[in-house]
Amino acid sequence: MKLAILGGGQLGKMFLQEAADYPMPVAVLDPDPRAPCAALTGLFKQGDYRDKQTVLDFAKDADAVGIEIEHVSVEALEALEEAGKRVIPAPRVLRLIQDKGLQKQFYADHGLPTAPFYLASGLADIDPERIPLPFVQKTRTGGYDGKGVQVIVSEEDLHKLWDVPSVIETLCPIAHEIAVIVAADGDGGTVAYPVVEMVFDNVLNLVDYVQMPSFLSAKVRDKAQQLALQLVQAFAAPGLYAVEMFVTKDGDIWINETAPRVHNSGHLTIEACANSQFEQMWRLLAGMPLGSVQQYRPAAMINLIGAYGHSGPALLEGLDAVLALDETYIHWYGKAETRPGRKMGHITVLADHEPALKAKIDKIRKAVRVISR
Amino acid sequence: MKLAILGGGQLGKMFLQEAADYPMPVAVLDPDPRAPCAALTGLFKQGDYRDKQTVLDFAKDADAVGIEIEHVSVEALEALEEAGKRVIPAPRVLRLIQDKGLQKQFYADHGLPTAPFYLASGLADIDPERIPLPFVQKTRTGGYDGKGVQVIVSEEDLHKLWDVPSVIETLCPIAHEIAVIVAADGDGGTVAYPVVEMVFDNVLNLVDYVQMPSFLSAKVRDKAQQLALQLVQAFAAPGLYAVEMFVTKDGDIWINETAPRVHNSGHLTIEACANSQFEQMWRLLAGMPLGSVQQYRPAAMINLIGAYGHSGPALLEGLDAVLALDETYIHWYGKAETRPGRKMGHITVLADHEPALKAKIDKIRKAVRVISR
Repeated sequence: MKLAILGGGQLGKMFLQEAADYPMPVAVLDPDPRAPCAALTGLFKQGDYRDKQTVLDFAKDADAVGIEIEHVSVEALEALEEAGKRVIPAPRVLRLIQDKGLQKQFYADHGLPTAPFYLASGLADIDPERIPLPFVQKTRTGGYDGKGVQVIVSEEDLHKLWDVPSVIETLCPIAHEIAVIVAADGDGGTVAYPVVEMVFDNVLNLVDYVQMPSFLSAKVRDKAQQLALQLVQAFAAPGLYAVEMFVTKDGDIWINETAPRVHNSGHLTIEACANSQFEQMWRLLAGMPLGSVQQYRPAAMINLIGAYGHSGPALLEGLDAVLALDETYIHWYGKAETRPGRKMGHITVLADHEPALKAKIDKIRKAVRVISR
Repeated sequence: MKLAILGGGQLGKMFLQEAADYPMPVAVLDPDPRAPCAALTGLFKQGDYRDKQTVLDFAKDADAVGIEIEHVSVEALEALEEAGKRVIPAPRVLRLIQDKGLQKQFYADHGLPTAPFYLASGLADIDPERIPLPFVQKTRTGGYDGKGVQVIVSEEDLHKLWDVPSVIETLCPIAHEIAVIVAADGDGGTVAYPVVEMVFDNVLNLVDYVQMPSFLSAKVRDKAQQLALQLVQAFAAPGLYAVEMFVTKDGDIWINETAPRVHNSGHLTIEACANSQFEQMWRLLAGMPLGSVQQYRPAAMINLIGAYGHSGPALLEGLDAVLALDETYIHWYGKAETRPGRKMGHITVLADHEPALKAKIDKIRKAVRVISR
């Protein structure tokens, strides 16, 4: 049996580190010959995963096909699925998720809570009275990592509106950002990891770290897991799903968006849980039983982000200081070049309790920096 | 900084899986182009690690050089060390360990308990009255994995003696086989993992599984760790050392032999401990602080051995049954071909206590088999 993965970034790399434990070769397709995956498989192929024919050629002798990025040729995945290959995520789910309009409509159709919204095919459909200011405009396709999303705060911002098919939604009064990763085997079996919380730095207004479990009440956490499971059951397809949610200031939970793949918010499962999200991805592709989501130790994760003012070959300052801390695990993605704001790696820490996690995170923040050489 | 490893087998492979987390490329040298490491680094080099010039050429632009097999050119490592590279293990320690005569003498010279012995340069020096029958003959060099070792039980066996430089030693009245893995930073800092025990199957008279911690008394375990630390301090060189010991029927501990590298008996540190033996190896080569040996959960490990009657391209039967068990981790080495008795992989299990470990091991034994396709 042979696996094929579209995308050769850090998610693919961590998958390859895990997949190396099993008796199945893994091929990876990425346009960048220096992608993080390139050196970790003898079956790396340079090519564009958005091009149908390239994907078909790449995956023709694979038994199962997976992704580590959403922006791939769904047409190719549909053809590969029709040809009898195991494709995860299911192309119909990926098609739904690639279009934020369809994704929002899916939540609404299934009675799942999400920010009130309407769909606009262009400027002419946007009515500032239908969803009052401030509101959010999201392009239906092509956006990722914050691109294709803008907040329209006041009437003076209206001229900034994009004249493209969009989702217009209420700006959520966010109290907390959380996520639940769910794996579904497609036969009704599902497992949900503990709720993670994106902890914000109130001064910098940036995600400071991701923590698992969240320190929200058990009631909120249970509700979040239930919603994530309900959504995944509605997808009715095997896969690994990262369901991102907001807890509103009123204590409600709104589903924000879903990624049908391993996700940044699940990296800490590598060290904190019996089986990581990458192991689940492998098991799903290989058609094996799902693994355990049991968490052993409280965990937190920070991203290592390229420092401002630095572009070029990357250098990680402070590695020795990080490694001097117990239960501290670095994952350097091996990207050839750093850029301001680029995710270059992450660090996971384990500890007995939340204050100890926070203390370690603070030490790490002071010790490390990703700069150019 | 760049690392170079001599040997591309399973130990090197697990090292590469770990090393992929850090910002240092790793080159690997092995004579077999299909070695387990070949697909896991872009810097794999086919060549003979026993050949001095090959090793010198291979490692010339590396900052640190390590091994995953002992039978390498020590002359090359000495030259690389003289050229200012960090070489682990220290060539003088490797030279000592490559010669079982020097190794035994080292134990004796440092007052470390070991089976009574004498050195013989050939048949003429072997005196069955000096160490009475039954005794063990070990060739001083070239032996590994049970090769180069024989038990001379009675006078009828004397004709089997090899006419080569040998260690002749008392056959140990073994009650238990244990091992301790120690990492030493060369500046006086050492960490020792919990004692592992090789649990025997009394019916088949084979090592059944490796367990950590051993279920021997705390007194015996403390003594074993002390001896291992004492030995490593005597080496006075940075490195990772697997110290194999016997507990005699009288309750004494005898050091059997030492491997100056990551070791089969330490594989379960990957899942059971805060930092694995492979992480320690990376930290040692990179000159980073040693990691934590804290053990979270009781663990056991079985080797996946090529079944008798099967040679050729390998097939692992029963993978799905293994993955259906919680806290069960497979490591398939990716060797191109299986042979009877060949180590093809291993499985680590975690559980709350020893009976649960044993029950899982029993299930796994019944479920899996390594055969040829």
